[in-house]
Amino acid sequence: MIALFTDFGLLGPYAGQMKAVLCLTAPEVAVIDLFADAPAGDPKASAYLLAAYAAWFPAGTVFLCVVDPGVGGTRPAVIVEADGRWYVGPGNGLFELVLRRASLARRWDIEWKPKRLSASFHGRDLFAPVAAMLARGEPPPGQPRKDDADRRPEWPDDLCEIAYVDHYGNAITGLRAAVLPSDARLAVAGRILPRGRTFCDLPQGAAFWYENSNGLAEISVNQGRASRELGLAVGTAIEIVS
Amino acid sequence: MIALFTDFGLLGPYAGQMKAVLCLTAPEVAVIDLFADAPAGDPKASAYLLAAYAAWFPAGTVFLCVVDPGVGGTRPAVIVEADGRWYVGPGNGLFELVLRRASLARRWDIEWKPKRLSASFHGRDLFAPVAAMLARGEPPPGQPRKDDADRRPEWPDDLCEIAYVDHYGNAITGLRAAVLPSDARLAVAGRILPRGRTFCDLPQGAAFWYENSNGLAEISVNQGRASRELGLAVGTAIEIVS
Amino acid sequence: MIALFTDFGLLGPYAGQMKAVLCLTAPEVAVIDLFADAPAGDPKASAYLLAAYAAWFPAGTVFLCVVDPGVGGTRPAVIVEADGRWYVGPGNGLFELVLRRASLARRWDIEWKPKRLSASFHGRDLFAPVAAMLARGEPPPGQPRKDDADRRPEWPDDLCEIAYVDHYGNAITGLRAAVLPSDARLAVAGRILPRGRTFCDLPQGAAFWYENSNGLAEISVNQGRASRELGLAVGTAIEIVS
Repeated sequence: MIALFTDFGLLGPYAGQMKAVLCLTAPEVAVIDLFADAPAGDPKASAYLLAAYAAWFPAGTVFLCVVDPGVGGTRPAVIVEADGRWYVGPGNGLFELVLRRASLARRWDIEWKPKRLSASFHGRDLFAPVAAMLARGEPPPGQPRKDDADRRPEWPDDLCEIAYVDHYGNAITGLRAAVLPSDARLAVAGRILPRGRTFCDLPQGAAFWYENSNGLAEISVNQGRASRELGLAVGTAIEIVS
Repeated sequence: MIALFTDFGLLGPYAGQMKAVLCLTAPEVAVIDLFADAPAGDPKASAYLLAAYAAWFPAGTVFLCVVDPGVGGTRPAVIVEADGRWYVGPGNGLFELVLRRASLARRWDIEWKPKRLSASFHGRDLFAPVAAMLARGEPPPGQPRKDDADRRPEWPDDLCEIAYVDHYGNAITGLRAAVLPSDARLAVAGRILPRGRTFCDLPQGAAFWYENSNGLAEISVNQGRASRELGLAVGTAIEIVS
Repeated sequence: MIALFTDFGLLGPYAGQMKAVLCLTAPEVAVIDLFADAPAGDPKASAYLLAAYAAWFPAGTVFLCVVDPGVGGTRPAVIVEADGRWYVGPGNGLFELVLRRASLARRWDIEWKPKRLSASFHGRDLFAPVAAMLARGEPPPGQPRKDDADRRPEWPDDLCEIAYVDHYGNAITGLRAAVLPSDARLAVAGRILPRGRTFCDLPQGAAFWYENSNGLAEISVNQGRASRELGLAVGTAIEIVS
């Protein structure tokens, strides 16, 4: 299975052209959209989402990842294997948390070149063909990486920020619930929020945080839109209050 | 074929993770998005849409339905077979109109349990695996339902409200055109609208209602956005004027 | 492969019902969304996008195209074969640029009729079944066209307008970069924009145009939203300044 993780949005031609490449070059492989609206042009916030959501998928999954504001510039193009899952995309920190949390990880520079490489759409011209090769079981078309231009050791292990606001207005943080004390409260936008288990445990309109279905701390308002009612957006800072 | 009927939106990870489950457990079965933007958290309005749109699909189709504001609470998890089509989802009234309009219907409580059930995402952890089992031809993994906690006998046979506003601003009601007198007019938002056949039958800017391609009364403005021009939204009341 | 080119949006039931038809009648054929948000109700702007984006696909691809404000009226329903690619949809000018730029092209009137043709959704009831037939290798179910009601000879060879605004706010024109002098500047919304190669070549906040990955001139602001910062929308006029 190939899972797409991009900031393309689903509209417009970008996701479709990548899927066309995948289905022409790996027609037997299923393709699903994991995130099409990762934080736009923000590899850092995206890296925390990717690490949390990829962990749910079985070994062998290939993640085709394009959050690539530096496309056409000097950032490397990389392949990562981490705990049996494969990742293809720009070496701009997007795989930093996947690498850091893996028991076993390897990195390659992509050396394969397409017949025609556009300046602005490496997702279609470079990363999608490479993801298709990996999904077909071919070896990584490149050499082991020798430098750390793709790493971001200065980034924290968990991100004390909102990394994603979903369709319901729930605000997903970059913070793993498992690293928080069980009675931790989260301070955000002038409010201090208690922990809940799920929506219907709390009175209507109550704001709380809970461990979401992928292990991240998520801020919600029961039967409300937390993003609007609390004023939360991607990048809003959070503090842990014990 | 498995058809998804949810209020998840297409963006974010929810639809993608459900599709990943389906493609891992029923790889031969096609999956299509029917509605990803059913009325959010509103099983009642959703129930009228589902019944109208599901009727177009062939017997054997499995509808994976998640409009589930009570997830993690006490609402039952159910399977419905109605006129040869299968439905899986929360027993919160979502299948009320499908059941009521069916010639032949049966209901089961889902008794299968996943290895790990998150508190907030039964769509991925419970309903998707069960939909995959049914799509593979396995019997319903549960027992016939014994109570009517999933039924809503007090709901009307047709819903005199806007149930959906589409991409063009057309407002779909919960009212079957077939139950209306052929010269019925609809009163909505202070206007009385005549019946039309299709868009191009009327002068530009004219508001009218017509029987849409799934049998529901739909309110439109030729070459305009009815939702904006008439002030319509999900929940706006309608009256039938003969 | 069948590629969808519509103005339906991805939400709502329209794309899903068309895909259901395709997967019931041509289950072996892959289906991808190329554009689901072509300029709404605007076959002219859509025609320039379609011609530019379809050219990237291999021969044999079937384009199922529905930008059809006149559905249910007198516009013809047509099939086009152009340079080995197939197109199915309304004969309202949508295929004008594909036809004009092709080395070899043929046109048919669709004469096949479905058992039930709704007044408002020929995409599902007529065009999707015909696209599936072509994708399965069947001959066009109709007769060669004898009139030019589907042609628009008065439209220009390139469209000096914004034809699409993408998820990032980049504004795609209907103008092929290859027909512009290499030092051409574009005047739009009171600004004169130089040519760039890609985003990261220019200072942050700089506005420029470049040849996008499908050969169209596209207007961007590095790390900004050109649509908002320059005030661009579908239909905004452009002038070529040499």
